[in-house]
Parts: sequence; structure tokens; C-alpha cells
Amino acid sequence: MADQYEVSESGAGTLAIPSLRWEEFPESPAVVLLDQTRLPAEEVELVCTDVPALVQAIQTLAVRGAPLLGIAGAYGVALAAARGFDVEEAAQALASARPTAVNLGYGVRRAVAAYRRAAAGGDGAEAAAAALAEARAVHAEDVEASARMAQHGLGLLGELLPGGGHRILTHCNTGALVSGGEGTALAVALAAHRAGELRRLWVDETRPLLQGARLTAYEAARAGMAYTVLADGAAGSLFAAGEVDAVLIGADRIAADGAVANKIGSYPLAVLARHHHVPFVVVAPTSTVDLETKEGAAIEVEQRPGKEVTEFSLPHIQGGGVVGGTGIPVAPLGATAYNPAFDVTPAELVTAIVTEAGVVSPVTRERLADVCSVSRWRKSRSGNGMMAE
Amino acid sequence: MADQYEVSESGAGTLAIPSLRWEEFPESPAVVLLDQTRLPAEEVELVCTDVPALVQAIQTLAVRGAPLLGIAGAYGVALAAARGFDVEEAAQALASARPTAVNLGYGVRRAVAAYRRAAAGGDGAEAAAAALAEARAVHAEDVEASARMAQHGLGLLGELLPGGGHRILTHCNTGALVSGGEGTALAVALAAHRAGELRRLWVDETRPLLQGARLTAYEAARAGMAYTVLADGAAGSLFAAGEVDAVLIGADRIAADGAVANKIGSYPLAVLARHHHVPFVVVAPTSTVDLETKEGAAIEVEQRPGKEVTEFSLPHIQGGGVVGGTGIPVAPLGATAYNPAFDVTPAELVTAIVTEAGVVSPVTRERLADVCSVSRWRKSRSGNGMMAE
Repeated sequence: MADQYEVSESGAGTLAIPSLRWEEFPESPAVVLLDQTRLPAEEVELVCTDVPALVQAIQTLAVRGAPLLGIAGAYGVALAAARGFDVEEAAQALASARPTAVNLGYGVRRAVAAYRRAAAGGDGAEAAAAALAEARAVHAEDVEASARMAQHGLGLLGELLPGGGHRILTHCNTGALVSGGEGTALAVALAAHRAGELRRLWVDETRPLLQGARLTAYEAARAGMAYTVLADGAAGSLFAAGEVDAVLIGADRIAADGAVANKIGSYPLAVLARHHHVPFVVVAPTSTVDLETKEGAAIEVEQRPGKEVTEFSLPHIQGGGVVGGTGIPVAPLGATAYNPAFDVTPAELVTAIVTEAGVVSPVTRERLADVCSVSRWRKSRSGNGMMAE
Repeated sequence: MADQYEVSESGAGTLAIPSLRWEEFPESPAVVLLDQTRLPAEEVELVCTDVPALVQAIQTLAVRGAPLLGIAGAYGVALAAARGFDVEEAAQALASARPTAVNLGYGVRRAVAAYRRAAAGGDGAEAAAAALAEARAVHAEDVEASARMAQHGLGLLGELLPGGGHRILTHCNTGALVSGGEGTALAVALAAHRAGELRRLWVDETRPLLQGARLTAYEAARAGMAYTVLADGAAGSLFAAGEVDAVLIGADRIAADGAVANKIGSYPLAVLARHHHVPFVVVAPTSTVDLETKEGAAIEVEQRPGKEVTEFSLPHIQGGGVVGGTGIPVAPLGATAYNPAFDVTPAELVTAIVTEAGVVSPVTRERLADVCSVSRWRKSRSGNGMMAE
């Protein structure tokens, strides 16, 4: 299957199959996803021809990652419009599919706003076209933002760690699988790799869903990076041994005070990084910054089913003989689990936030607002949603 | 199978089947182990009638946990002696089965010393009996030590956290499965539970081998404790939310400077505990203290196979259709992993070390040596290896 597609010039990056694309099939338009729950064992596409299917793909993490969720949300609105479904209802379902991911709501709102503007003229086909054009703009902006983050991030690494030979620790997955482009934190590591400045990528496996071991390792392997997977609890030993030069992670929501919600396990890395005087760098587009959320404590953290912890379950293990849908229990029957999807790292533990519009460091409410206003001013000036610079 | 055995009065504690026992079968004596790799799904006994079988059980973690390894090592020597095998060779194989576990060597040395003293008289049967008597003494001492640690630890919790209602975070497994008695850290939590002072036991799942989710949860469930399992990376969120009153862990080796080698993932908890001003308490018998190892940096840390991280594999999933011996890959083919079994926490991050001979706090080289000398003096005075007090 991997051979059926060329690497997309629009930035599929390390992937053989783009993480998400819009397709006009004869019978229906569709949002076509690379099913991330089946990686790295299988590269399977998931064709969503309606919004409920897309919502399910979002909730089961077949499609995931902050920027990509924004793109998926926007295309989801376009899909509802193209197929003549209730767009407002679809937008509501999409925006609430996952509570912490701010980009999802951002992408949905952009496409809905474009749809409403055009629908005011009374032409449904035109409104659907407008929603799709806006989704394509969100997508294109993300490709562009990804490239800019990589460039800014590489520059920052050069400043923080003169001499190159970086040993970067990362958590979860933040590459081409989360983005229309090459991603966020992993895009920076990839840029360092291409510049010959990456000595080692340490990949936290990222329990419970193993996005590091499954997805980041998959991307790192495809890109030919020197990488090593580790259990999340082993990161401490790497810090203690002086084997980590910087931590690079993404974000699912950044509050106005600079607090960063990211995959569970990020905050312990921030505390370890501080203890060992290692830079802790967050890479995220300004669309991840939610100025409406005043502070970290106000971020709603998604709680996921406990069985993600108490059972071992991957779709591709069904091929191994395990009955579909039932995981392998790893804890006693009846065990309860605490399973927040994200944690929140306060700004004082974050060395820098790298955005497409520049680097925020030190991370303060004011500097963060500044970089967002620059970015948003550019978008509003450029009319089509692309940054003018 | 669980119904075939009564709970042992000698301290099987939360277990239906003792974690280890010596059995005189008609055809051969044997060390009979509760196979910990098959818990919690199955309670299966592993009968070791020779030392290679026991060494394999140690290396595959069918038997594990610092104090229990000491007991296993001592009985292993007794087994070799009883069956007329080369005792020195057996002792060598046993002592080197796992490099970090100091108790293993301790138990082996005690049984070998007893054997040699008796063998000097020229009677092999008498020497074998002496080795077995010494193994039984090591075993009995551990039951006693466990009870004393529980008592000292409960007292310490009362001092550190007046008012009760403790919310204790623990890592790996440190209960009846690691001990002739009720264990180390988990024995303290169990004492708090019995005293009505345990509000919640937070159980780190403990990747890669999930001793927390599999074994500690199993023991906690059997004891009726209020417990919740979590991914190791989620502990940070509990600290941040003020949901952890103390961390209780065991140890595999404690250096003379008070540095504690314990299951990988312990050190990050120590750093988090310090960051959040939460007590970090180590519970271990003085046999875990290795005064020959001057400092933490000198502790040899066992590196285990990378596939423990890159593949998901539990013996009982073979029943689920997976071919025996081959795990389910969770990382791309060819992925390498960093998989140290232990990490080392420096003394300055340890609030207290609870031993059977008393509590060491603050943890200094001098206080640690003092408590060990008290303990060893008692043992040497009592002649049979039991503590006099």
C-alpha cells in the first residue's frame, strides 16, 4: 500500500501516505486519513464520507495531533456542507469530539465562518465551496507554519546548544502525522537531522497509547534519524547521565499565561529538565494558543477510559488472534485507572515556545499575546488566511 | 489452584500461594515459586529442582524483588548441596544471575558460608543440612524484617503526615511477592490500610514489565485496599493536583552514601516529590545496603533486552493466540531501545530509608552505616542469624 502513493510535495514529509487528504470520489467527497491506530504494523487508509465517521476517527485517535485535528475539523465542516448535511450540527459534533484540543475548534470555526458568509448569499453550492476553500487554506497555512516552526526551532537550538551534535528527547508524536506539513517538535528535530546536527533522538514510548514507540519511531525510521525508544520512566536516567541536551515537545493547548497542555507525561519531563538545567522547548503553531483560557488551571483535561491502561490493545493485534475489541488484561479484573490524556506544564518550566510567528522566550503572558497578535494581524491582512510575511 | 493452599502463617500476607517455598518431594527437594510472570491472569507454581532452573526463573523474573531474591539465592545453594551438585559453582551462577540485586549475593553468601563451615567436618549431608538451615534463617529473618519495616514505616508516616487519610504513590511491586513476609514499601502501605489510615494507593503501572499494574494491583486487590493504577507518566499530574501525600518505594541496592538503586522510573518520582515538597521514602531491609559500594555512581545497573520495550509480551497472552516467545511489536522493525532495569536516586532526594533496624533520616553515610552496624551486631550476637531484639 505504501507504494501506491508518492510523497506529497505539499509536505507529507516522512510519510509515504499523507496523514490526511480531501478526495472527490465519484460517489461522494471524503476525508481520507492514514489510520494512526494501525501504525507501524500497517499503513491503512480510512475513508470518512460523513461527519459521524470523522468524529469517530477523532475520538479513537485514528487521526490525532493538534494541528492535524484543526485541519480535520475544517474539512469535516466542508464535508457536511458538500453532502448537504446540517453544517451547524456537524460543526458542533466535530468541535466537541475532544475537549482539550484547541485547534479542532479553531479549524471548525474557520470553515463554518466561511460557510456562513457565503451561505448568506443563499447559494448552498457556493457556501460548500467556500467551506472547502477555507479548509484548504487552514491546511496550507499549517504546511507553511510547520516549515517556519522548523526554521525558528533550528535557530533556537543553535543558540541554546552551540556546537551541534544535539541529543533531543521527545514525547508522544509531533511529526508529519500530526500536521499538513512536517509537524511541530519533530519537524524541528528533522530540520536538525537534515542539517547534520542531530546526534540522537530519544523517543519516549508515551504510555498508554504508545504514540512515541509506534508513531514517532515510525517517522524517525523513515527519515533515517538515529533514534532510540525508551519507557517513559527511563528518561530520568538519561537526564542524570547527561545524555539529554534539550527536550522538544508539541502542545494541545497553550493558555494565555503560557501554561502548556500536552500529552500525559510531558510535565514530569519539564520538572526533570529544570532539575538538570536542560532546555525544555515547546513547538506549536499560534493556533494552539488559546487566549480565552486565561491560565493553565482553567484548561479542561480530557479523561480517557481506564482500560487504555488496564488492558493492552492495539487494532493490529487482532491479527495475532486476540478477539477484536477486547484488549489483553494487564491488571486484575476490576482494577480502576487514572487516565488523563494530558497534563499541564506551567510557563515557568518552559524555556521557549516556538511558533510559526517567532520564538517566545522567556514565556510570559505579554510576549505570548504579542506573537499571537502578529500572527493574527498577518492572517487578517492577507485575506485568504495565509500569512503575509 | 489458589484454593489448594492455605495462607501461610509465616507471612504470605496478601497471597493465596506463597511467593517461594522449600519442598521435599519424594523424588527431589525443590524450590517452588509462584510464577510472577503469569500474574494476575494465572496463579501458577514453578517447581525448580536444580540450580539452572532457578537461575532461569530469576533471570526471567518469575521470581523477583530484592528480599525474595536473597531467599531464593540461599535456597538455591541448599538445593545444590542437597542434590550433590557443585555448591561453589551453583553459588557463582546464582549470585551473578542479576547484577544489581545485592540481596541475591547476600543470601547466596550466607548459605555458602554455612555450607563450608559444616563441610569442613567432611560430612556432605551435614553440610547440606547446614545450608538449608541457613536458607531457612534468611527466610525467617526476612519475615521478621518485613514486619519491623511495616511497623517503623507506619510510625514514620504518622510523623510525616499527621491526621491519617494517606494517599500513597508506589512504583513497581514491593509486597508479599518480593518477600518471605509482606514485603517492604507495600508492607508499610498495608499496615496503614489495616490501621484505617490509607485513603488511596496510587499504583504506577511500571513499564516496561508492568509489575505495578500486574503485581501490586493484584496484591492491593486481594488485601481490599483502595487502589488506582496509572501510566508512569501520569504521576506528575497527581503531584501537581496535590493528590500524593508520600511516595513509598523499595530498593534493589543502597550504596554506602545512601543512593538508592530501584526499578526504572523511581528517580523521576524522587525529582517530582522534591519539586512538590512531598516525602520520598525508601523501605528496604539492611541486607539491601551494600557498604562495599561507596556511592551511587558505582552501582552497576542491569541493562535488559530492548524488546521488553519494543514488543509487548506477557506469558499469559500466549493463550490469546500469540506464538510463544514472540511478542507483539509496538515499534517499527529494527527499532532499538534503551532499557535499564534500574535507576539511581541520590540520597539528597530521599526523605528517609526505613529498615528493620530503624529509620534513617536524614539519609547520610554515617547514619546508614550506624543502622547497618546495629543490625549486623544483633545478627552476629544471636548466633542463628535472627535479630536479638
